[in-house]
Amino acid sequence: MISIEDVRCAATRLEGIAHRTPVLTSRTLDARTGASVFVKAECLQRGGAFKFRGAYNMISSLPADVRARGVVAYSSGNHAQAVAIAAGMLGSTAVILMPADTPPAKLDATRGYGAEVVTYDRYHEDREALGAALAAERGLALVPPYEHPAVMAGQGTAALELLAEAPGLDLLLAPVGGGGLIAGCATAAKAVAPGIRVVGIEPEAGDDTRRSLAAGERVRIETPRTIADGQQADIPGELTFAVNRRLLDAVELVSDAEILAAMAFLFDRMKLVTEPSGASAAAALLAGRVHAPGARVGVIVSGGNVGVARFCELLGRPAG
Amino acid sequence: MISIEDVRCAATRLEGIAHRTPVLTSRTLDARTGASVFVKAECLQRGGAFKFRGAYNMISSLPADVRARGVVAYSSGNHAQAVAIAAGMLGSTAVILMPADTPPAKLDATRGYGAEVVTYDRYHEDREALGAALAAERGLALVPPYEHPAVMAGQGTAALELLAEAPGLDLLLAPVGGGGLIAGCATAAKAVAPGIRVVGIEPEAGDDTRRSLAAGERVRIETPRTIADGQQADIPGELTFAVNRRLLDAVELVSDAEILAAMAFLFDRMKLVTEPSGASAAAALLAGRVHAPGARVGVIVSGGNVGVARFCELLGRPAG
Repeated sequence: MISIEDVRCAATRLEGIAHRTPVLTSRTLDARTGASVFVKAECLQRGGAFKFRGAYNMISSLPADVRARGVVAYSSGNHAQAVAIAAGMLGSTAVILMPADTPPAKLDATRGYGAEVVTYDRYHEDREALGAALAAERGLALVPPYEHPAVMAGQGTAALELLAEAPGLDLLLAPVGGGGLIAGCATAAKAVAPGIRVVGIEPEAGDDTRRSLAAGERVRIETPRTIADGQQADIPGELTFAVNRRLLDAVELVSDAEILAAMAFLFDRMKLVTEPSGASAAAALLAGRVHAPGARVGVIVSGGNVGVARFCELLGRPAG
Repeated sequence: MISIEDVRCAATRLEGIAHRTPVLTSRTLDARTGASVFVKAECLQRGGAFKFRGAYNMISSLPADVRARGVVAYSSGNHAQAVAIAAGMLGSTAVILMPADTPPAKLDATRGYGAEVVTYDRYHEDREALGAALAAERGLALVPPYEHPAVMAGQGTAALELLAEAPGLDLLLAPVGGGGLIAGCATAAKAVAPGIRVVGIEPEAGDDTRRSLAAGERVRIETPRTIADGQQADIPGELTFAVNRRLLDAVELVSDAEILAAMAFLFDRMKLVTEPSGASAAAALLAGRVHAPGARVGVIVSGGNVGVARFCELLGRPAG
């Protein structure tokens, strides 16, 4: 479990280090949804996603001698870049395990930040076992993408900042992959804005957290096939699920088509570059999967690492 | 002529009305250019470009009875949307003259903001004469895209905000179309940061201001054929040129290919949606048209109204 104090402590560590990303509004978005919507643009965060908040918070809290030996991480992309950047800023070195089918823009960006990249087959290999083996073999500290209190607390600072700029929210929407972002954000939001509803958004094919909440225990699903590559978790984290089963009011689902429509809306009307996972919470609102007429709604747009080529592959063809 | 007091007065009128757009930094951009670069993201302004600042400032300073009869504007796009939005916010109505070959996203957006759109042929018709005739016929107040002190002063608030967040800039780069943005920005910058160099950026095909500065008088060129549709002015404005000949240190040029490369960089590395004109000042720095090693450089990214389809038409094909 993490507390609001953990999130506040992370916010202090990240002050002047992480970007305080802007909170954006759009009259068109409000008109489309009937709500007053406040978009936390984490696509403008260092490394292009919220992941930097958790990675930096955890690495900065490692003992100096551990940090000096280096860190290892496994990630579908954004956490990889985040760990690479944070390690570099903190005088550490990073080895990153990435799925072989990761979009090239993310592989390149991770290497560009100075990390060593090791690829694996996400459909047949167990990244957690590979990461643990690499950590033992080289004496590296593992920085998990969500399964650590310091990672969850760091990621929760996104909601803390959002609520400071848009107080009195009735509802907070955030994407759910492994569950770290929403666990941290729910911890912050429920403490700062009592009465707020916190709803997680998953892609239809990757509804492991929704199923797990319904079952009352962690449920494993087939590795999801969805364009939302940051939300391809097949089972919620133990730590994140322990937080989320207590704090989430609901999890709603969106289709890949609804995510694409939201990416186009965010590009055309709000000038935001979003990757599919980054747009899924906005998609839920735009597609009417979540109704909030008259409410003040916070939406975390969590990342923008899509690359021009992939973006145009997804959206460049005429609709219909 | 306009003064810093005009810009400050505009800033007061725009407070809480225009978005105070974020100033973004990128370690990759700094590494690529050898400078400390501060990007003023006016693509995140209301209407997707800096134009709202000038339009609102001017319309809000019209006498109430004039404003009530409505306004008219001619524009290649962003000014159109800006006038439509500002008129709507101020209880006025807007008629907008737009080139028939304006990107559909801009025509649609302008209508979406409640304006009446009248199209014309930009290669064979004189928009200024058309605008004047419409104004006389319907009793409307003309809101010019740059030729008015209140428009220039309003547009200059972008630089005022940038320098408040990034003090002590050595160099300011901004795109030059009709010259209103850079006139207002130079007025603000030279007053607030004595010693700052202000350099305008034009597309190679649209170098009317550069030629005019060299000639010492306004020079008319062929209507430029460039992807930078916001910079297709064929002659500098009278009022803007009077300011710019006094305050600009230089005008540098960029090619369409350099603009495209900058649009891709801003999308991939900074998650910014930019239209070609909006990216031209950043392009000059990235392409080495302007060298500023070790300097603190402000760059105005002036607009992001490109639309998914046009963006992918311009950048969706593999490079090479």
